[in-house]
Amino acid sequence: MRADLHDEFAAVSSSLVTMAKAVREAMRQAGVALLTADPTLATQVTLRDAEIDVLHRVVDDRVYELVALRRPVDTDLRMALTAFQVAADLDRMGDLAVHIARATLRRYPAAAAAAELTHLFRSMTTVADELSGKLVTALSDRDAKLAAQLDGDDDAMDRLHHELFAAMLRPDWPLGVEAAVDGALLGRYFERYADHAVNIGRHVVFLSTGTMTG
Amino acid sequence: MRADLHDEFAAVSSSLVTMAKAVREAMRQAGVALLTADPTLATQVTLRDAEIDVLHRVVDDRVYELVALRRPVDTDLRMALTAFQVAADLDRMGDLAVHIARATLRRYPAAAAAAELTHLFRSMTTVADELSGKLVTALSDRDAKLAAQLDGDDDAMDRLHHELFAAMLRPDWPLGVEAAVDGALLGRYFERYADHAVNIGRHVVFLSTGTMTG
Repeated sequence: MRADLHDEFAAVSSSLVTMAKAVREAMRQAGVALLTADPTLATQVTLRDAEIDVLHRVVDDRVYELVALRRPVDTDLRMALTAFQVAADLDRMGDLAVHIARATLRRYPAAAAAAELTHLFRSMTTVADELSGKLVTALSDRDAKLAAQLDGDDDAMDRLHHELFAAMLRPDWPLGVEAAVDGALLGRYFERYADHAVNIGRHVVFLSTGTMTG
Repeated sequence: MRADLHDEFAAVSSSLVTMAKAVREAMRQAGVALLTADPTLATQVTLRDAEIDVLHRVVDDRVYELVALRRPVDTDLRMALTAFQVAADLDRMGDLAVHIARATLRRYPAAAAAAELTHLFRSMTTVADELSGKLVTALSDRDAKLAAQLDGDDDAMDRLHHELFAAMLRPDWPLGVEAAVDGALLGRYFERYADHAVNIGRHVVFLSTGTMTG
């Protein structure tokens, strides 16, 4: 990489790491709020999403500037535009944390995660946090090996998602329609969160190695 | 705009229009497959998504080339990168059509859209097709006024989405959990489809006027 680009890529990368940490924290709090039916924490997640939006804008502006002023070519250009996509995925992950928080608020004082499903949502929350933690490290260390592991962690989320649907669709499901509708949507939010993490993992592999996978 | 850029922007724009038409057709077919529980049509939607993926790659490659070779600056650069985002939204809309088609296949020979909800899904399909049609025209004519209308059409989808949930959560909902889980997910797919259309609308306004809204 050209020397004049190196510092600017480092600045973009550092903004992405900050954003990934904020998203991880949002999802962690959304998970706790869901499992404990905590409206204060859930509200905090919805309010703090504005911070993630600002970080997204910071990344976008840095990428625009980098491309406009430094005129990268070939791999450098693709790397710059990849940062753009990573930021969009992170933004979306933050939105999904907000969706989970809103589901918690919508059902309060009841729990959006029905007691019968709590163990599954606890596992989903754990998997989501592991994914987020790996993302932060992979982005800050440009660790392609760690980034590539995200695909496997996503399989764990898919398995939990299938278990969730199996639980709700059993003939002896005791909780009725409302709990199942909440369960279906929450499951979808967690699954999408993991999908975006996998996307970013692939982008990080590219950022680290110049080779796109998947 | 610089003269040398004009033709290349026209080429990018034309690929986006082709992509938008393919997405519209996919969503139209997915809607018919859902409402008629037609597995052949649903399968076709899932298979033809590969075409949309190829079109996405064509747009991305054209944008990369345009930026790398023509070195646009300022508004031209932002316009180029906006095309990138429009393509990503269109790709995602195609994926949502596939999700609807897969829901149809999963439940066949039963209907994924329960009889009690058919009228709502018919309306959602109609709104989705209107949104898609406006997108095609707005993209091909760079029509900022039409693009700005998409926000209002999205409100119609949101209203239908609320009606859908109200119908499923009524105490006298007759169809049980499985139909409600399908309904919740299908509703979410239609809603997200409209959200992406609104995103694109905002981008088209920017592409046409150089001013970002929303």
